[in-house]
Amino acid sequence: MNGAENLLHTLEHAGVEVCFANPGTSEMHLVSAIGRSEQMRAILCLYEGVVSGAADGYARMVDKPALTLLHLGSGFANSMANQHNAMRAHVPLVNMVGDHATYHLKYDAPLTSDVLAHARIVSDWARASESADDLALAGAEAVQASLRGAGKVATFIAPANHAWDETSRTAEPLMPAGLEAVGQDATEAATKLLGNGKKTVLFLGGRALREASLHAAGRIAEATGARLVCEVFPARLQRGAGRVAVERLPYFAEAAVAALDGTEQMILVGSKAPVAFFAYPGKPGWLAPESCEIHTLATVDQDPLAALKAVADRLGANDEPALAQPALGLPIPSGILSPVAIGQSVTRALPADAIVVDEAATCGLGIFPVTGQAAAHDWLTLTGGAIGIGLPLALGAAVACPDRKVIALQADGSAMYTLQTLWTMAREQVDVTVVIMNNRSYAILNIELARVGAGQPNAKTLSMLDLSHPDLDFVALAEGMGIRATRATTAEEFDVQFAEAMAGSGPRLIEAMVVQQMP
Amino acid sequence: MNGAENLLHTLEHAGVEVCFANPGTSEMHLVSAIGRSEQMRAILCLYEGVVSGAADGYARMVDKPALTLLHLGSGFANSMANQHNAMRAHVPLVNMVGDHATYHLKYDAPLTSDVLAHARIVSDWARASESADDLALAGAEAVQASLRGAGKVATFIAPANHAWDETSRTAEPLMPAGLEAVGQDATEAATKLLGNGKKTVLFLGGRALREASLHAAGRIAEATGARLVCEVFPARLQRGAGRVAVERLPYFAEAAVAALDGTEQMILVGSKAPVAFFAYPGKPGWLAPESCEIHTLATVDQDPLAALKAVADRLGANDEPALAQPALGLPIPSGILSPVAIGQSVTRALPADAIVVDEAATCGLGIFPVTGQAAAHDWLTLTGGAIGIGLPLALGAAVACPDRKVIALQADGSAMYTLQTLWTMAREQVDVTVVIMNNRSYAILNIELARVGAGQPNAKTLSMLDLSHPDLDFVALAEGMGIRATRATTAEEFDVQFAEAMAGSGPRLIEAMVVQQMP
Repeated sequence: MNGAENLLHTLEHAGVEVCFANPGTSEMHLVSAIGRSEQMRAILCLYEGVVSGAADGYARMVDKPALTLLHLGSGFANSMANQHNAMRAHVPLVNMVGDHATYHLKYDAPLTSDVLAHARIVSDWARASESADDLALAGAEAVQASLRGAGKVATFIAPANHAWDETSRTAEPLMPAGLEAVGQDATEAATKLLGNGKKTVLFLGGRALREASLHAAGRIAEATGARLVCEVFPARLQRGAGRVAVERLPYFAEAAVAALDGTEQMILVGSKAPVAFFAYPGKPGWLAPESCEIHTLATVDQDPLAALKAVADRLGANDEPALAQPALGLPIPSGILSPVAIGQSVTRALPADAIVVDEAATCGLGIFPVTGQAAAHDWLTLTGGAIGIGLPLALGAAVACPDRKVIALQADGSAMYTLQTLWTMAREQVDVTVVIMNNRSYAILNIELARVGAGQPNAKTLSMLDLSHPDLDFVALAEGMGIRATRATTAEEFDVQFAEAMAGSGPRLIEAMVVQQMP
Repeated sequence: MNGAENLLHTLEHAGVEVCFANPGTSEMHLVSAIGRSEQMRAILCLYEGVVSGAADGYARMVDKPALTLLHLGSGFANSMANQHNAMRAHVPLVNMVGDHATYHLKYDAPLTSDVLAHARIVSDWARASESADDLALAGAEAVQASLRGAGKVATFIAPANHAWDETSRTAEPLMPAGLEAVGQDATEAATKLLGNGKKTVLFLGGRALREASLHAAGRIAEATGARLVCEVFPARLQRGAGRVAVERLPYFAEAAVAALDGTEQMILVGSKAPVAFFAYPGKPGWLAPESCEIHTLATVDQDPLAALKAVADRLGANDEPALAQPALGLPIPSGILSPVAIGQSVTRALPADAIVVDEAATCGLGIFPVTGQAAAHDWLTLTGGAIGIGLPLALGAAVACPDRKVIALQADGSAMYTLQTLWTMAREQVDVTVVIMNNRSYAILNIELARVGAGQPNAKTLSMLDLSHPDLDFVALAEGMGIRATRATTAEEFDVQFAEAMAGSGPRLIEAMVVQQMP
């Protein structure tokens, strides 16, 4: 058996089932081994940013790693922005990166680069295989490393000769650590704080935004009056009818400061204290009031569910949480196709248990609040700020959950980063409805330009933030990659097209010619 | 004046005229300063890989740097593969990368990463600005660093507060070093070697592939019988009718070994000794015969023209070089649309002084030999092996040379890496004709799979190398980004469409449904 085949057996035994791949010459033995594996599903992506973003979306839904297959340092580089997002999402992800045969590196052939240096920037754990005998062990260690805490990005490098050389050394899967337990001291301390009468925010992130944890948090809110606030960009927020609602901290720093005004103490559960996304001249970076005390109940790598339950029980809280959302019927929207109108149509037609991926940027700000009482669903966002993850996330989520409807709410500018995803969606016939918010602009940057005080923009400055001249035609782009697509220019048209997409199945795209009132 | 405005003045004085940009919030003051600059042309790209590839193409044609504008570590990461190619092309390139305000870094906001760690991997020179007073100096140093030798990738990091803070400290441009002179010892030694009667290859790369250097090399060949061979992937090869032809070293290692068989000595001029692109089990990585002696006349950072002329003069060579190519008339090709047929049509219609960008992968192997006697032109290739540079290179070359026709010969698989380039081509109305070689496959990988001996592939393995299911429709994709496009399915159709494109101007795309005989 060669190193590649041996490695595949180890990865299969460790429970890895899906490989998102964009291979090159140095990975041909890995490709062959995957081809011969019965368990490992292989999904070809046309760009590495699709590979890493899809692996993130998969992991967010099943809490276990997908495998990626990437080609040398430059292939890995193309995946790095979405690896960054995955790190910030705290998901398990295992990167398998090919490299030249070790004895070939001395020649400094054209594609040679320091693969490990690339990997270290966006991995919590990284190492290179040392021999064909070691390759499977490197894979086993990577899977284990990816499953520490809530999840880590783990990268192992597979030199070509370690894949093709023969080996008889096998490797067993290694026990992963998983979420750490929260100590009794911490739950006691939090219970005490919640009884001290101060104005309290439970600031929730990571796994604390799953339904069961939110239920426990809602019990605490009911018992103590504490506010439930979640991080601006949750990896996966379970929300909608029947679930406990949280306030989502606003993106713009001044709005976030206003939202937290008067807070005397903040208890972190699976989150870090909130900070501004960017610095702005003369504006605060720290968002909580200066006098607000910050306490930690659970870090992102600790088990929030057991901790929140323990606190709720200590408080003698009822089983009925505060803030449970009723379902809300909304009328058919009419007229201008605004983000709010889109949100109404989504709320009207969203099937139960849908997965919504939100990289809608400025439009998302309008859609999110409207959809809080749609049927129960998961809401996935851009955790690390590196745009171009929405379509890949939707692909990965759909692969992880083939029986659930996936909706990608996607801004136009960021869609163009990883538009190649549409091809893989068509190839795999995933059940994803992509809604492109076509406002022909990097709208967020037009807002930010004013907010940073960079002076009155002239036409040349604005041209660097503008997506018109020429207009992008997303219907043509989608059809060019084998995806059925339609265009909606009014709220009524969108409502019909979206309802139709929800009633059907398989990949499709709606280009929403959205009209925005800027905040 | 703020730091950004001050910096722009310095960059203008240093002769930088074009900025390829994909900015974000932390670069808004840089965007504003560019907007107010009269000299600096701003070209928006929809992805950072387009930005860096276009800057490479620009530099290859004018031997001076374009500026890039990139957003933090993740934005830079998206540009890295083409930065790698630019390093391997030995071109001057100046990256301007925004970062968070320095005082904001401590918050570890979502987009925070180690920008300098990214930069160092693919830059010959990198540093961060230390203050608003220092920002312009950092820019001046970067331009200077980019113009060392043949050209270097130089990256400076501009924290947002250094851009927006006021400063009165200006910075003058710094004298660049440029190409080093070759010492008399080296020219004397090369002259002696060329007279020793051994079978000699002049192995040419970098600037040695410009017309005047090739003329001098042709004189040497005429006087001594030395062979002229060029590196497999030249950054810019001046060739065609009236110029001195060089043999291009074959890509596949076994063919390269055969081509160099019997060579007793090799003299390097602007190149390194040839090595295999990848390792293959049991095949050589070093391509010259073991007994072949390797000598260096000029490194890539030295002036090949003066050195080659000095050697030719010492040898008493005639002014008439060997290997000067006559123009060749070719008939209209007919029937199957093969790479050779495409090469025939290109040769027939290519206007004088055209620029051909070749990322046609396997198809390029067929086209290149056929076009050697087309009208004089420049041939640009993928120097670093990181695919996805062809379209950006063509964009950058067209911006650099608005009066010359640019032809991008582009493989389908690699086109999908940076297809967003088409939008910028449409916006800037550059005179580029894109020819997509649609063979619905990563054809090169199907060949490499066999060459690495990875066993008989099954359907699943082959599916990872296959671009059908669904078929990509490049006419629709081009039209979706505002580019006029047609499809050619026979040699006759292609001949007509290509001739029409050469007769007209402005951006257009031809999807060539190419049929290949695999080597």
